[in-house]
Amino acid sequence: MADAAAGQANIGVVGLAVMGANLARNLASREGNTVAVYNRSPERTETLLREHPEAGFVASSSIEEFASSLSKPRTAIVMVQAGRGTDAVVDALVEVFEPGDIIVDGGNANFQDTIRREAALREKGLNFVGTGISGGEEGALHGPSIMPGGSAEAYETLGPILESIAAVAEGEPCVTHIGTDGAGHFVKMIHNGIEYADMQLIAESYDLLRRVGRHEPEAIADVFETWNQGELESYLIEITAQVLRQRDAKTGEPLVDVILDAAGSKGTGVWTVQNSVGLGVPVGGIAEAVFARAVSSKPDQRAAVRAAVRSRPEVQEPGEGFEDDVQRALYASKVVAYAQGFDAIVAGAKEYGWDIDKGAVARIWRGGCIIRARFLNRIVEAYAKNPGTTTLLEDEFFAGAVAEGEAAWRRIVAKAALSGIPVPGFASALSYYDSLASERLPASLIQAQRDFFGAHTYSRVDSDKVFHTLWSGDRSEIETVPSTH
Amino acid sequence: MADAAAGQANIGVVGLAVMGANLARNLASREGNTVAVYNRSPERTETLLREHPEAGFVASSSIEEFASSLSKPRTAIVMVQAGRGTDAVVDALVEVFEPGDIIVDGGNANFQDTIRREAALREKGLNFVGTGISGGEEGALHGPSIMPGGSAEAYETLGPILESIAAVAEGEPCVTHIGTDGAGHFVKMIHNGIEYADMQLIAESYDLLRRVGRHEPEAIADVFETWNQGELESYLIEITAQVLRQRDAKTGEPLVDVILDAAGSKGTGVWTVQNSVGLGVPVGGIAEAVFARAVSSKPDQRAAVRAAVRSRPEVQEPGEGFEDDVQRALYASKVVAYAQGFDAIVAGAKEYGWDIDKGAVARIWRGGCIIRARFLNRIVEAYAKNPGTTTLLEDEFFAGAVAEGEAAWRRIVAKAALSGIPVPGFASALSYYDSLASERLPASLIQAQRDFFGAHTYSRVDSDKVFHTLWSGDRSEIETVPSTH
Repeated sequence: MADAAAGQANIGVVGLAVMGANLARNLASREGNTVAVYNRSPERTETLLREHPEAGFVASSSIEEFASSLSKPRTAIVMVQAGRGTDAVVDALVEVFEPGDIIVDGGNANFQDTIRREAALREKGLNFVGTGISGGEEGALHGPSIMPGGSAEAYETLGPILESIAAVAEGEPCVTHIGTDGAGHFVKMIHNGIEYADMQLIAESYDLLRRVGRHEPEAIADVFETWNQGELESYLIEITAQVLRQRDAKTGEPLVDVILDAAGSKGTGVWTVQNSVGLGVPVGGIAEAVFARAVSSKPDQRAAVRAAVRSRPEVQEPGEGFEDDVQRALYASKVVAYAQGFDAIVAGAKEYGWDIDKGAVARIWRGGCIIRARFLNRIVEAYAKNPGTTTLLEDEFFAGAVAEGEAAWRRIVAKAALSGIPVPGFASALSYYDSLASERLPASLIQAQRDFFGAHTYSRVDSDKVFHTLWSGDRSEIETVPSTH
Repeated sequence: MADAAAGQANIGVVGLAVMGANLARNLASREGNTVAVYNRSPERTETLLREHPEAGFVASSSIEEFASSLSKPRTAIVMVQAGRGTDAVVDALVEVFEPGDIIVDGGNANFQDTIRREAALREKGLNFVGTGISGGEEGALHGPSIMPGGSAEAYETLGPILESIAAVAEGEPCVTHIGTDGAGHFVKMIHNGIEYADMQLIAESYDLLRRVGRHEPEAIADVFETWNQGELESYLIEITAQVLRQRDAKTGEPLVDVILDAAGSKGTGVWTVQNSVGLGVPVGGIAEAVFARAVSSKPDQRAAVRAAVRSRPEVQEPGEGFEDDVQRALYASKVVAYAQGFDAIVAGAKEYGWDIDKGAVARIWRGGCIIRARFLNRIVEAYAKNPGTTTLLEDEFFAGAVAEGEAAWRRIVAKAALSGIPVPGFASALSYYDSLASERLPASLIQAQRDFFGAHTYSRVDSDKVFHTLWSGDRSEIETVPSTH
């Protein structure tokens, strides 16, 4: 590893675990790229070089050598564990990089950390670009969906390189400059939140087809394959069919029946909920998905409740057209989950001062990433028609799609409730839709209660002013100023 | 204001807005207390002294004078706006107090701030006691529910004073030492989160009685009054009946019909969701309540969706026993919301090293606070019988109550879904219960999907080891180590 000539590489990768190694190979496979690589422990570098001589990697055994192997402005993509791992590598690069150079964080960083790091590096004249990368190991190798933040100037250098390795959907590379500083990691976080919701809705559909529809996993795989020919066509539906067809070699049972039903998570779903609720955005679809995973992973509580439960309700008959009903409920709930996710993007952009093109976000999610789906074309179209749309649910296409599936959606939620099948995602989405569609909500009662016990005041339907009723006095109404406590 | 003799007061209050003034009056009304008061702007102090000469307040015009008017160890309750307001007053008190003195923060502080402040003051030898106080203005004056954190040593001095002013429920003062540092404010936060859920469930009940039951507000007030004679007896049910009976003087309409249906919030509900989801605790009942308020306060989205919606479903007939069904759905959903809230307390105690007596928390919530209810006696009993209960839903009484109401609960969620009435709280609670009660959950499918696209690995029902299927290889299964990315 002593063949690194000065300035010969146009792009570098630091951190050569599977995601970093695959991204480096992807970069090296594109014309015009010479890729410098560096890993703290040299074994990983040696393995990568040995296994992929075709890549022509420029390897370094020190961070100094790595820096000098890059042409200027130096551009390095950091692919290490989010958090302290990233801080350590970034600190080391800052020591050997110069003003104008570009450090890209391609890990799953918290966008708040990215905002902090970008500001700190900008003070030193360095460009820091927090970048969401979705698609897993395969995506990193063959073409991920890429969500870079950071400055517009940095994107001038970085953009063409990222475009060369991104997935391509309908002729367009799945990368766009999302916005400044933490915008890329914020949008990647929301992407993951939507992914949680999408997976939960698929899981509820499967559960209904299994328990109410009385179908075996392979028959359900057929159903998902059929769905994948229509408007629900997506990567997650496709792999669901493949998973349900898989048989366990040891027992001969469907694999899904021998896997422990305790879902794990890595944190981005939790972040999405924490940030969305903080921004005042209702994201029931995502929150219920995060909660459903959490419930599944509480074996003590599940065992205790099962022991305490005296009887379970009888599962209803599916009735005619049940599979179609489930498909429609899934589609309508999915529209709601995406509408909520895009609302969170709008709120985040407003809070943090980002100028985010929602249509472009939908466009770069059409390929490479986990939630890639035909459906996203409809979102691209919705924002093209009306960039200022207040919710995707007002868009003509989506309003029509929900209207068409609405009766089925209601039947499915009702049947699940009566049958004892949990459908937190379907039910939350339906209640959200019904809240938006209701002329009046009982929130007026909540305002009255708050005024009663806390003098929090209320507005009236017939006035712009603010009022308080003297609940512990003569119960007359007075005009007042909004409560601050 | 120059009559403050040195060391004559045993307790002081800083910040004399309505909550602070009422708390000071409450303290002064109890035998043995002499109360020092201080406010940054002297007008408030003067008004309080003028209007309440009977209280015998010891007033000061400077923070130094305030400190010297207190006997040692000095004990001062700070009642100012949470956040910077509290920091400013605490910093000022630190200058004039001495080691061993006690500073109590009675505001709605974020418990993380309380942990930080307690540690900083402990370094200086001072006691900092973050204390949740619930009950609004009336409670502060006549007896609130008090949730103090801080050290056991500080509680020796402070406890008797707080016991003297707390609400009394069934002969016991509604105050207990919750745990160290931020434990008191944490439990107050959860109290408020449960309050959000409770109010949302009542609002959904009202909406169903109004829209499906076709009752006028005054008739619904009668229903709530009847409910308040039974197991649902509580402050919130009681004031709901009073609110629904109130007529608007201007229009003659029920007040609830002229109040704008956009619910506000002050942040503790958001904190509860953010912290609970971060602790891995599913709190759908609280989250859906926070989301429901947020949806109600988005007039643009509501108007856009109403304009886009082509038709609304027909509201179903209530059928026989509808009011009883709603009552049972409310009760069962309330059990779930409290079970989730207590789970969050257990998780917080574990995370932050607090030794919290759950039964004692339920006991001090029986009086003074907004969620005071007969129901809390059942929680006290459940924890007395089994302090290590894994969820309130396994307790014999609650399991029986849910079983008794279960069929009604299912009917109500189904009817609401078919009728287009949003019931996010009822539906989320039912799905949570059905998740816990299900033998198998579709979380196994989610684990398989995660293993497919991200090599996240999975456990099997028949092994303690961890596995991965080579999805993009020959689809054989290998034993592996859990994924860390």
